[in-house]
Amino acid sequence: MFSIGVDVGGTNLRAIRVARGTRIEARVKRPTEAALGWPAVACAIAEAVRKVAGGKRPAAIGIAVPGAIDDARGIVTESPNIPGGPDFPLARTLRKLFRGSSLRGTPLAIENDANAAAWGEFRFGAGRGCNHMVLLTLGTGIGGGIVVSGRLHRGADGTAGEIGHVVVRAEGARCPCGRHGCLEAYCAANALVRSAGRIAKTPADLARLADRGNSRAREAFRRYGQNLGIAIASILNLLNPERIVLAGGISNELDLFGPTLKAEACRRAFALPGRRALILKGTLGDDAGALGAAALAGI
Amino acid sequence: MFSIGVDVGGTNLRAIRVARGTRIEARVKRPTEAALGWPAVACAIAEAVRKVAGGKRPAAIGIAVPGAIDDARGIVTESPNIPGGPDFPLARTLRKLFRGSSLRGTPLAIENDANAAAWGEFRFGAGRGCNHMVLLTLGTGIGGGIVVSGRLHRGADGTAGEIGHVVVRAEGARCPCGRHGCLEAYCAANALVRSAGRIAKTPADLARLADRGNSRAREAFRRYGQNLGIAIASILNLLNPERIVLAGGISNELDLFGPTLKAEACRRAFALPGRRALILKGTLGDDAGALGAAALAGI
Repeated sequence: MFSIGVDVGGTNLRAIRVARGTRIEARVKRPTEAALGWPAVACAIAEAVRKVAGGKRPAAIGIAVPGAIDDARGIVTESPNIPGGPDFPLARTLRKLFRGSSLRGTPLAIENDANAAAWGEFRFGAGRGCNHMVLLTLGTGIGGGIVVSGRLHRGADGTAGEIGHVVVRAEGARCPCGRHGCLEAYCAANALVRSAGRIAKTPADLARLADRGNSRAREAFRRYGQNLGIAIASILNLLNPERIVLAGGISNELDLFGPTLKAEACRRAFALPGRRALILKGTLGDDAGALGAAALAGI
Repeated sequence: MFSIGVDVGGTNLRAIRVARGTRIEARVKRPTEAALGWPAVACAIAEAVRKVAGGKRPAAIGIAVPGAIDDARGIVTESPNIPGGPDFPLARTLRKLFRGSSLRGTPLAIENDANAAAWGEFRFGAGRGCNHMVLLTLGTGIGGGIVVSGRLHRGADGTAGEIGHVVVRAEGARCPCGRHGCLEAYCAANALVRSAGRIAKTPADLARLADRGNSRAREAFRRYGQNLGIAIASILNLLNPERIVLAGGISNELDLFGPTLKAEACRRAFALPGRRALILKGTLGDDAGALGAAALAGI
């Protein structure tokens, strides 16, 4: 018995074949073909799933997708990075593409990618054993997923968890979303690199400079932690979770921004929720989304 | 069959005797004696409950309290406005005070007052029939309660819903909590009156001036709506609720601040959650907390 989890990224999509929750038996990575729009992406997903299934029949297939999802109907309602919407019927399209193969009739779940990653970390990673958890993905953008009382909180339209667009400074920096002062305006990869005066091209390069003692790089990560801490304090006061799990590429640099993040979050949160929440790095790395999607599909 | 609900305010406490959810059969109002500390407040609660019970045995008693509650143990863990904490064992103290009366052994529930009001509005008022609702109490301070998937979200320590301390401007005005830029720093009653240059003593007086066309009063309410809209946009992006219910004294002036509130919230929230959420005034008025507490006790 195995399930299949797929994480559809802006550039590549990754499919895994997984047994007993987290044992990854096979992997496939291929281009998403995002620029060609949703019908082409659906074909790419179907091919990756077929390949990783290897002619056998999975118990379930879960797909993590960057966008807003109507999970009950399997529809991608909004996905800014992949044209072809709104309201692309991904589940129905995949079911058609699976006809006549071993995948025919397999239960299928579509979920937002940050929600899927949150569910993955909650079930198998840094969130195991708690009830209330919030995950933030720190990368090109800032995403998030919320687990409340052991259940994924999707909200009325499946858009809950847009932590990147929690306001930190109402009249602050312009955000890629077009508004002002959102968390993402300060903590997206681009904003981080820009805040150091573009002495590096990527957060990882900037981290290397910081590790070598470059003071502008170190200061940029300190400010990054502060800004993230402001938004996390709002989340602690609002939701009183047990754990805040950080995922995505920039979470690898937690050593550099963790101290200011934790200090700012504790300073701004009330004593009880501030003391309660553990702020820690996810343990599943790039597999969180696919593992979470597979687990969601299997329920 | 009836239940009893008590709402412990900073000045007065109000007890109601309620049948079939919302039919209020009797009321008692008396001073809280907050300055005397929790043991005295517990005596005041017990007396009000006894009076409103009229010698009969209620099915359940619910108490709404301003502070952080450990609902499982019936303990008030923190309550800034009533001395005698932390960790005052309210449920145990009341059980002792009820010994030898008709109230002996009656199931007892203690809940944070804003959470209780949220539950009241969710079950019987402006939140009826939805799944995800957030209530804000707009008064001396700003409180809140969150209902997720039809359940009250208390969080790990019962402190969830501190919407007054969601950050709107990280380096902004000083908040009564001692930090900077919280919603409460802009939208508490005092902040509203101050922002109009103290041309009135209370929000209600200021509203009367605004109704008569006073431009400073009108502008103060416009800004009030804007600031509230910023925090509500963060909540819409984070939780994607179906309804935002406004309660507390200042919610009576929704005509004056509603238009800018709604415009700002919609402008800053994503399209789907912005379109989804109805922002409306609670329908239970001052009874929301007591009705909610009685209902929570009865479950």
